[in-house]
Amino acid sequence: MDAVQHIRLTVAYQGTRYVGWQIQHNGLSVQQVLEEALAKIAGRRVVTLAAGRTDAGVHARGQVVKLCLPEPFRYRPEELPRVLNPLLPDDVAVIDGARVEPGFDPRAQAVGKHYRYTVLNRLAKPVFERGLCWHLRKELDCAAMSRAAAALCGEHDFSAFCSSGADAGHRVRTIDRFAVYRQGDCVLFDVFGRAFLKQMVRNMVGLLVEVGRGRRSPEEARPILASRDRRRAGPCAPAEGLCLVRVYYCKEEYARDAEGIGAPA
Amino acid sequence: MDAVQHIRLTVAYQGTRYVGWQIQHNGLSVQQVLEEALAKIAGRRVVTLAAGRTDAGVHARGQVVKLCLPEPFRYRPEELPRVLNPLLPDDVAVIDGARVEPGFDPRAQAVGKHYRYTVLNRLAKPVFERGLCWHLRKELDCAAMSRAAAALCGEHDFSAFCSSGADAGHRVRTIDRFAVYRQGDCVLFDVFGRAFLKQMVRNMVGLLVEVGRGRRSPEEARPILASRDRRRAGPCAPAEGLCLVRVYYCKEEYARDAEGIGAPA
Repeated sequence: MDAVQHIRLTVAYQGTRYVGWQIQHNGLSVQQVLEEALAKIAGRRVVTLAAGRTDAGVHARGQVVKLCLPEPFRYRPEELPRVLNPLLPDDVAVIDGARVEPGFDPRAQAVGKHYRYTVLNRLAKPVFERGLCWHLRKELDCAAMSRAAAALCGEHDFSAFCSSGADAGHRVRTIDRFAVYRQGDCVLFDVFGRAFLKQMVRNMVGLLVEVGRGRRSPEEARPILASRDRRRAGPCAPAEGLCLVRVYYCKEEYARDAEGIGAPA
Repeated sequence: MDAVQHIRLTVAYQGTRYVGWQIQHNGLSVQQVLEEALAKIAGRRVVTLAAGRTDAGVHARGQVVKLCLPEPFRYRPEELPRVLNPLLPDDVAVIDGARVEPGFDPRAQAVGKHYRYTVLNRLAKPVFERGLCWHLRKELDCAAMSRAAAALCGEHDFSAFCSSGADAGHRVRTIDRFAVYRQGDCVLFDVFGRAFLKQMVRNMVGLLVEVGRGRRSPEEARPILASRDRRRAGPCAPAEGLCLVRVYYCKEEYARDAEGIGAPA
């Protein structure tokens, strides 16, 4: 067996054109374009493993990807952004590359993930935020949404926020922080947790926006969660507002960022 | 003469596709697409006047535009974003509309403007910042650039930073604040002043980046400014990194924002 080296890449992408991270038969995935670029420099297929599958249309600023390259190899890991980026489409970039231990598992070893959902909350349509937000004209009640978000924090069975058919079985997850706050014309939903069910963040944001619109009260969040009934929790927020900001492998960094997020004092 | 009402619009645009704000014969301008949309709702030509001409490729988040509409008119000024935005291309949006005094002059009455120049300063190419930044791979020295920027603050003859042939005559301008700081992967250049010469901000950023790259020393800024010689100040930074963030008509707001800008403590 040939010698290999183990590499970790940080990857950013605008998900608009893609069926999601993972290779699928029904369209172009981010994994496919990354693996095609890797194959060009490695001269053979390179299999990648990501920290989390992002859904169709969802963006990432800090997806973490594990792969193996021959050892020795003509490029150092730190050179991979420079070498791979010209081979990738405009909406996918490798941010950095580093050598990791052979046992590194980007999914199992993640201690936390930060997802951000962005609502552009103003009358006027988006310009710079096109394709990167959910545009809602009517002013949302951030205080009410924050109260509902607080009710979702902690360890719970999140079946009520799991898209149907998916993740059968164990649906207990933990949300460490769920901050909802206004920043300029946007309302940001910052969610920190180690793992999430399918469309869980978008389903939670969907309910919170119902609360922010005054269609539901913040006090409904707790009984909806307890019901474990997906039908009670309301609509799923559109994919384009969601972004995987960062995957953490250091508990202290994760705790510091989760605590520090939110509206400036 | 028919009765008219005087209206102020705030307009945002991504300048990539445009020859600039002002109507020109050699291509599409933001003013042209806005006036075409206004003509559709007014049934006649509507002339607009902006707080500042932005150059080809330069963006705006808060361009201020003055115009007149018939009185009475079928839409209230506050309704203009809702009515105009569907008539505008994706990269131009009316953010708000308000009635103003007949004497309102968006250019002459501006007490200050905030321009931001964005450099993406990392190895990897831009993803979400595509078309909205100058991408420079090598790490810039922000401390050195800040020292050079400080030398440009105050009232000076800025001929050394005025693109040739333009603004013949009086070239004395005042920079009230010039902050250079890192934010994530970006280096931001925040410039506050009442009025600027042609390409003055981009020419200043061009010199500062030479300093940040270590090609020039921060101490060169002062003698270059004093020389009034455009040839000494170095290259003009690309248009795509520049954005007119806001035009101020209230001195207190302007002073507060100019003072408050910069790296978080």
